[in-house]
Amino acid sequence: MMDVCLFGVGLIGRVHAGNLARHPKVRLRYIVDPNREAAAKVAAATGAEIADTETVMNDPAVKMVFIASATRTHAELAMAAAAKGKAIFCEKPIDLDLKRTDECLAAVAKAGVPFQIGFNRRFDPSFRALKERLDGGEIGAVEQVIITSRDPEPETEEALAGGGGVFREMTIHDFDMARNMLGEEPVELFATGSSLVAPQYRKLGDYDTAMFILRTASGRQCHINNSVRTAYGYDQRIEVHGADGMLQAGNRLPTSVEMYGSNGISRDKPYYFFVERYAESYAAEIDHFISCVETGRSPAVTASDGRKAMILCEAALASARSGRFEPVKL
Amino acid sequence: MMDVCLFGVGLIGRVHAGNLARHPKVRLRYIVDPNREAAAKVAAATGAEIADTETVMNDPAVKMVFIASATRTHAELAMAAAAKGKAIFCEKPIDLDLKRTDECLAAVAKAGVPFQIGFNRRFDPSFRALKERLDGGEIGAVEQVIITSRDPEPETEEALAGGGGVFREMTIHDFDMARNMLGEEPVELFATGSSLVAPQYRKLGDYDTAMFILRTASGRQCHINNSVRTAYGYDQRIEVHGADGMLQAGNRLPTSVEMYGSNGISRDKPYYFFVERYAESYAAEIDHFISCVETGRSPAVTASDGRKAMILCEAALASARSGRFEPVKL
Amino acid sequence: MMDVCLFGVGLIGRVHAGNLARHPKVRLRYIVDPNREAAAKVAAATGAEIADTETVMNDPAVKMVFIASATRTHAELAMAAAAKGKAIFCEKPIDLDLKRTDECLAAVAKAGVPFQIGFNRRFDPSFRALKERLDGGEIGAVEQVIITSRDPEPETEEALAGGGGVFREMTIHDFDMARNMLGEEPVELFATGSSLVAPQYRKLGDYDTAMFILRTASGRQCHINNSVRTAYGYDQRIEVHGADGMLQAGNRLPTSVEMYGSNGISRDKPYYFFVERYAESYAAEIDHFISCVETGRSPAVTASDGRKAMILCEAALASARSGRFEPVKL
Amino acid sequence: MMDVCLFGVGLIGRVHAGNLARHPKVRLRYIVDPNREAAAKVAAATGAEIADTETVMNDPAVKMVFIASATRTHAELAMAAAAKGKAIFCEKPIDLDLKRTDECLAAVAKAGVPFQIGFNRRFDPSFRALKERLDGGEIGAVEQVIITSRDPEPETEEALAGGGGVFREMTIHDFDMARNMLGEEPVELFATGSSLVAPQYRKLGDYDTAMFILRTASGRQCHINNSVRTAYGYDQRIEVHGADGMLQAGNRLPTSVEMYGSNGISRDKPYYFFVERYAESYAAEIDHFISCVETGRSPAVTASDGRKAMILCEAALASARSGRFEPVKL
Repeated sequence: MMDVCLFGVGLIGRVHAGNLARHPKVRLRYIVDPNREAAAKVAAATGAEIADTETVMNDPAVKMVFIASATRTHAELAMAAAAKGKAIFCEKPIDLDLKRTDECLAAVAKAGVPFQIGFNRRFDPSFRALKERLDGGEIGAVEQVIITSRDPEPETEEALAGGGGVFREMTIHDFDMARNMLGEEPVELFATGSSLVAPQYRKLGDYDTAMFILRTASGRQCHINNSVRTAYGYDQRIEVHGADGMLQAGNRLPTSVEMYGSNGISRDKPYYFFVERYAESYAAEIDHFISCVETGRSPAVTASDGRKAMILCEAALASARSGRFEPVKL
Repeated sequence: MMDVCLFGVGLIGRVHAGNLARHPKVRLRYIVDPNREAAAKVAAATGAEIADTETVMNDPAVKMVFIASATRTHAELAMAAAAKGKAIFCEKPIDLDLKRTDECLAAVAKAGVPFQIGFNRRFDPSFRALKERLDGGEIGAVEQVIITSRDPEPETEEALAGGGGVFREMTIHDFDMARNMLGEEPVELFATGSSLVAPQYRKLGDYDTAMFILRTASGRQCHINNSVRTAYGYDQRIEVHGADGMLQAGNRLPTSVEMYGSNGISRDKPYYFFVERYAESYAAEIDHFISCVETGRSPAVTASDGRKAMILCEAALASARSGRFEPVKL
Repeated sequence: MMDVCLFGVGLIGRVHAGNLARHPKVRLRYIVDPNREAAAKVAAATGAEIADTETVMNDPAVKMVFIASATRTHAELAMAAAAKGKAIFCEKPIDLDLKRTDECLAAVAKAGVPFQIGFNRRFDPSFRALKERLDGGEIGAVEQVIITSRDPEPETEEALAGGGGVFREMTIHDFDMARNMLGEEPVELFATGSSLVAPQYRKLGDYDTAMFILRTASGRQCHINNSVRTAYGYDQRIEVHGADGMLQAGNRLPTSVEMYGSNGISRDKPYYFFVERYAESYAAEIDHFISCVETGRSPAVTASDGRKAMILCEAALASARSGRFEPVKL
Repeated sequence: MMDVCLFGVGLIGRVHAGNLARHPKVRLRYIVDPNREAAAKVAAATGAEIADTETVMNDPAVKMVFIASATRTHAELAMAAAAKGKAIFCEKPIDLDLKRTDECLAAVAKAGVPFQIGFNRRFDPSFRALKERLDGGEIGAVEQVIITSRDPEPETEEALAGGGGVFREMTIHDFDMARNMLGEEPVELFATGSSLVAPQYRKLGDYDTAMFILRTASGRQCHINNSVRTAYGYDQRIEVHGADGMLQAGNRLPTSVEMYGSNGISRDKPYYFFVERYAESYAAEIDHFISCVETGRSPAVTASDGRKAMILCEAALASARSGRFEPVKL
């Protein structure tokens, strides 16, 4: 049993808290969150102690930190943990600023501590199975990838104002999946964004509806479509076309019930949002990280993956303004 | 936290052990199993203590017992627990003998302890959702029910010799679902069995392939089909026809991946067997039972349900011999 | 171009009329129907001439007759056509009376004319593909067959009064498919019928809701379920379980459109009834018959198939009364 | 019965020939094709007469011409027919040259004859149902459209050399569907093409794999993906996202048969290519045109639709070279 600390008990933090509390190899020793009420609830449910950052960093029993706090605190916490030799699991993005991201990565590299970025979708059972079958050559060389990624509801204006914009907060996951599925790094990226759904996005100079095309050096192509609102829940699909066929991974439905009635045949909507849809992937990514720390293996999703996805976000912002393919160097 | 004991750490017992170890409201205090090696493994994994029946029964801190041991021990353990005022969760069947079943039920009733029979399928999310929609009137009055229930592989001759036959071990679950879905008690039952799959069944005078028709007093009908072997995993489906439509609950697949290739479009096989397919229902039935004990509510699946399903098994055995509708009094 | 005559322009007759008018190898020369208005409409649409039976039978240019008139006229028309050496396509049943059926078959046999019974489902592309794959050994030896066959709406009391009852009019098709899929002749049949849907059935001593189990000598089993009313259109499905897997042929939907909305995911209902669902099979059975007559091959669906299905109907009627397996000799 | 002439009996021409021969309102009087052998076959099968263009144009009984000959002949034949007052059904594209297209359209407009362009997909039952449901407001205002359009096999080098390139021959249909589904005209278009599949495309400066993004003035977006080769048949799907939900129209499969075996669950591949997949739409577009000519209504798919799709092709060619959004004026 290794002691661990969780920073941040917002929506994703609470998912991690539950998975850490259940995990047989670690003890959720501390939680840190400026919201005392939220922290108290999670502490009560998990048996963890509420602590401040200094206490955590100075406790040599704490071998791992899980950073799910506000984005602007990620880099600082990660660097502090690195300095103390603690293994780091960090939610994306590392930082909204690329230079600051690089400083953080340098500190982590210097400390030589394990670092995993929270691209949980890599651990979704369906996406992982698709990727393994791709790697197994089942459809030959990849030619095109199509990623559908649509949230069920827009963010509030407050939440948006504190964030990095829809590309850095939402599309970043899709950029990581694009890299993962293409099997080659993108070298060009085209983006276009619109304001069709929720005025708060336009107000902040952001987009609520967007499409992307990425292209690799050999000519492989990837399309992504995003929206911040569906009527039917979280829409998360990947389709990969190769020389010998196509692999699709679709949405998961809560039950297998189908109704045949006078209005047609109907089945459940997809799960509402990421907490439900990616429940298994959140547990699996934590499990992967803990297992890597325990065995000394390197995590499969690295700080560099986080950095590369952020570079694609920057290119997307530039392209949405320029209306042209922006070059990408990864 | 209430202390509980688990009797039996065979396949189903181990599923319960895992769910009990993870459950926040109970402590898996003891496990009892004549197989020392199996017991030791589960004890090590869960932190439970290996004990004998007497110790468990005499420990007043043990509020609940979970009986997943060999069928012939069910009634005796249940009666001993009842005598000590412990709540009882018992795997089906209570006993292969109806008279012995009745003695056990009488003892439980006299003791006034909570008793839940392990008809886990009642807690399967898809079957439960189907049932709730039925009860909500979504398809009007039920007219016909079709239950498909097929195991992936035959039992060994040894396992068969120690069991109660395929109707009492396998179909009993389907009989419970038939009662649950029909919304009226069956009054007649027709059964026919064949030996097409595995010679050990025929050798023991049993069937490996069977079909059933149940009928209620008002004329509602239910068909069940069983086989002890599929090529494609566990096949568990329910279809209910009512005045205003049909509700189906189908198999669950491990992933949502689909492959389009030169041989067609393919997706995953269903889960291999009950441990995987009914993982959620095993957890949910335990949770229901613990919550009932905690709150004083009566469990939704009772000893009487276990007894009635057993009566249907007896009628099925008689019908398979007589070739006619056998009357059933529930 | 061979001249042909169509007897009967009711619902099925009109389907045949359209297919005959479009067929490149025949000319729809005559139609015969006591309903002058209906006959006139079809004659106008197809260019056929309205005639009486005598004219048709005495016209040596008429090489084939298609009998889709009232059931009680089938045997007489078939025998008259046989006597004149004309090839006969006859809707099922040949006659409601088995003795009369045998007389008709004898006359046809004596005349040596081609005879095809209108079991159109044998020519449904999906059922035919399923059967071919069965015959190709794709799932090994057949063990169980499940046939779902449900009409969208009950017959009127008038229509029922003039017919042979639901087993002889509706289930007869399912009995033929059962024989076709089992690959062995049934030797026992169990039936149970209820009155849950429409009082006119009960009034006439008939059933509107029924279930069946057929069994072959080697122990293969077949279940059929019937209802005269669905809320969602015509429900026609076949499922065959064999040693190496399962083959299913399901309903066909008018379009591939799916709607994802706040109430779930919905798609089209199945086609409303046989005219739409079996459009291709009606065309294909006619085409098969014409091709057989042209080339001298024997039709794949014979008078004997019609007779055997009728024997199964008789056994079903007996079983629904006796409550037991009735023996069947085919 | 109106006399009609068919120009061209290549693959699509033969589809039209069959539909015209079966159509109750017209007589396929003439066919014109420089390939005498092909013409002879179709003439024999349909009863049409082989003729030269002059004869056809000078026969006042010929009320309609169907132009399915080589692309370079379209405009000349259309102008000749217009001059003679004949109604014109013309395969796309009208001409590869936009100026020539405009001359043709001017001639048709001046003559005032009905003109329909062969965008058959508008008449596909599933796409048409989707469009009607869009127009009925079922998912509210359109926000994004995703079109998947993939051919089963590349063209030969010979065929490519004589054609207008993959955008003008293949994507043109998708551009028409994009306009149809977006409900607003595109004002910008981005395209990128690769050579991943078949060297003959690269050799001719063309692409075998391409992606597109179209954008309307209000910010609606449409993605198209194309490939000239699949392993699994013709892939033709449309997905439309609106404020209140999503509508999808997927591929059609030849049968409803599903196989459950040890390798998973499999069903049929989609239809191989357009002749099979769009069989109903080819018949329906002809029927629509004939009905328009008969009743004096204007065809739903006009010369202007053909011209606008061609303008989108030109923009796509420019964008694939420039790497930027190209403006489009429709």
